[in-house]
Amino acid sequence: MKAEIIAVGTELLLGQIVNTNAQFLSQKLAELGVDVYFQTVVGDNAQRLRQAIEIGRGRADLLVFTGGLGPTQDDLTKDVLADYLNRGLIIHEPSMAQIEHLFSSRGIHMVESNRRQALMIEGGEPLENTTGLAVGNGLSADGTLYMLLPGPPKEMKPMMEGAGAAWLRSMLGGEQPLYSRILKFAGIGESTLEAKLLDLIDGQTDPTIAPYAKEGEVSIRVSTKASSEAEADRKIDDTVDKIKERAGEHLYAQEDVPIEVQVIQLLRGSSRKLASAESCSGGLFAELITNVPGSSGEYVGGVVTYTNGMKHHLLSIPMTQLEGEGAPGAISDSTAALMAERVRQISDADFGVSLTGVAGPSESEGKPVGLVYFAIAERGKPTSVHSLHLSGGRSIIRLRAVKAALYRLWLTLRAEETRATED
Amino acid sequence: MKAEIIAVGTELLLGQIVNTNAQFLSQKLAELGVDVYFQTVVGDNAQRLRQAIEIGRGRADLLVFTGGLGPTQDDLTKDVLADYLNRGLIIHEPSMAQIEHLFSSRGIHMVESNRRQALMIEGGEPLENTTGLAVGNGLSADGTLYMLLPGPPKEMKPMMEGAGAAWLRSMLGGEQPLYSRILKFAGIGESTLEAKLLDLIDGQTDPTIAPYAKEGEVSIRVSTKASSEAEADRKIDDTVDKIKERAGEHLYAQEDVPIEVQVIQLLRGSSRKLASAESCSGGLFAELITNVPGSSGEYVGGVVTYTNGMKHHLLSIPMTQLEGEGAPGAISDSTAALMAERVRQISDADFGVSLTGVAGPSESEGKPVGLVYFAIAERGKPTSVHSLHLSGGRSIIRLRAVKAALYRLWLTLRAEETRATED
Repeated sequence: MKAEIIAVGTELLLGQIVNTNAQFLSQKLAELGVDVYFQTVVGDNAQRLRQAIEIGRGRADLLVFTGGLGPTQDDLTKDVLADYLNRGLIIHEPSMAQIEHLFSSRGIHMVESNRRQALMIEGGEPLENTTGLAVGNGLSADGTLYMLLPGPPKEMKPMMEGAGAAWLRSMLGGEQPLYSRILKFAGIGESTLEAKLLDLIDGQTDPTIAPYAKEGEVSIRVSTKASSEAEADRKIDDTVDKIKERAGEHLYAQEDVPIEVQVIQLLRGSSRKLASAESCSGGLFAELITNVPGSSGEYVGGVVTYTNGMKHHLLSIPMTQLEGEGAPGAISDSTAALMAERVRQISDADFGVSLTGVAGPSESEGKPVGLVYFAIAERGKPTSVHSLHLSGGRSIIRLRAVKAALYRLWLTLRAEETRATED
Repeated sequence: MKAEIIAVGTELLLGQIVNTNAQFLSQKLAELGVDVYFQTVVGDNAQRLRQAIEIGRGRADLLVFTGGLGPTQDDLTKDVLADYLNRGLIIHEPSMAQIEHLFSSRGIHMVESNRRQALMIEGGEPLENTTGLAVGNGLSADGTLYMLLPGPPKEMKPMMEGAGAAWLRSMLGGEQPLYSRILKFAGIGESTLEAKLLDLIDGQTDPTIAPYAKEGEVSIRVSTKASSEAEADRKIDDTVDKIKERAGEHLYAQEDVPIEVQVIQLLRGSSRKLASAESCSGGLFAELITNVPGSSGEYVGGVVTYTNGMKHHLLSIPMTQLEGEGAPGAISDSTAALMAERVRQISDADFGVSLTGVAGPSESEGKPVGLVYFAIAERGKPTSVHSLHLSGGRSIIRLRAVKAALYRLWLTLRAEETRATED
């Protein structure tokens, strides 16, 4: 089955918002085994929308609309499609009752146009909107399927995942759905990982292997069409085994989670605490860690010692270590080690992680942009220090440095977990 | 002039990436006075790309392609368009020389396919790629304009803003370009701001006023078509004056900069230093501030005291303040004040900013999710404490709290700057 996604909204054409709906719908349709051949964006204009329907019908079996179901005069997706199909619009009574109830319960006067949100195209199926007022529509006409979804993502997504997917499945019948698994890697760049897997990526068509990079991490999506989840799992497991042979030490999860979530889980599992001391990363390590819900059980806190004075005041690092002739300086392996050790001691945590380096835009202490030292101090163990030579802009260097430190911490925790299990 | 943006790439149809290029190009085309009527996404498939060109030519005067200029067999935008227009592909010698130089200087063997990136369509103009290898193309054929840009945003954006915009301007001739100005607001929600400006937004067609929210801040774009920048500035200034009458105290910039940049500039202008003490925001304040290039001159650092123990160890806040019967607790106005004052003293900074509250997912100390206290301590001045009752998820609460604190700090700094100027 070939599909086209048609997003309706002038705000998209003006570049006021980005079309994240198209991405979401493409992913969901792929999961249902539907191939998306085109995505189209058209403004709130009846004539051009009609044109887009006409073109879409000629090249796809399923047209998925998003947007233009609201109450205003600009919202004309239902009107235009009904007119194009020579069908009428009818009232979906449960939706109308819901709209009237909402307004009366809030004591707000309902303007007439709000009733438009309860309209559906004759012969279609209503798609329930659990988070808003505009009812969706599923419709089969002259061999083409039409699905009408709202534009706001908070209404569109639940409708697509709920009533929309159910309706589509009922129309698709025998098509095999696409199953996929996300593999997450750390401590390795996208191009290096791709080079290790090149023969697999190029030589294999089922399951397919698609690498992509986002937010300082590298992911691989392994996808296959199968008649059941069990069959898909078997096929995907085989491919994952081949990937593990080539890059297993960097694979930290088989689901789409950032590495800080895995780190928090390993800390939780072993009842241990973490503290951080950051210089060049400016709080990003703390920010990523504390963005994990419930991380306050494992992360006690940290310092952002941006200046040498702060490194001295908060971490008691001697000024002779940081400044003056022959001093190692703030950007050095020994300062990284001291920062990690001191923050661990002050906070009485089990682990202290530090980062110090040059995020740019210009060099510092005569050291080049992209040079970053990080250290992991562990209670009762020798401190390990690592250096990175990163490229990219300021934000990218900070993010990659923090992800590299998280990866090392994860390696340490996992190795200890493995030993604990073996004991 | 009517334009259509055609993004080429199967990864878009699979939902692996979101089409941010379409948004960027829509904005840039609007600035040049070009109306975008359609956005299309098509995969790396010659037949369907040809179809998209055919359709686009029938409904637009300008087709802007992004993607498919790279070296691989999947990259076929130039080939398909040349074939469609019955034109040949020729080598752009400067690009070829650049490609050969790059490979030889790095001592890497160049595979033949890399030469494809230097090809351009006969009769077209090369568009220089300052950040990558694939040359762009501008072409006028049979009354339609074609612009070919690379897919990776880091190559596409500079090309569009540089050679692409220059070529387009030369082709557009007499059309009035669209001028616009971004107004940035803080300390106010999108709906509240919109309500204050509703009569202006609805009643005014030139300049247009379009509000939108992103990343915890609210922006308004004021746009008008004009024959010169001076004329546009006059029209926009008039509208900005009307907006200022209604919400002037929240307007912090007339360009698209985050508030932390303004804060750093005001600190720099008055040679003052800032430190931070964070609890619920977990380092986000530090992270946003230090993400401003050169902020190390104004931001000395801070602490992320996630636990009471850390508040005690790092900031010497008495445990009796934090715990036990009748204690104010960590989430209180008095703790916020102490955190701000202590971090200011320890770091010898001019300002100390603190945040403590409940970001969720669950309540803490019996206090509800969304309650946040923040304080601003200033050398030689009384400390001010503020409370917020925020809604949304964990990330949104953290971001809004930090932006609110930055707004208060900006207000304080601006008021002092105004007084200093008046003296």
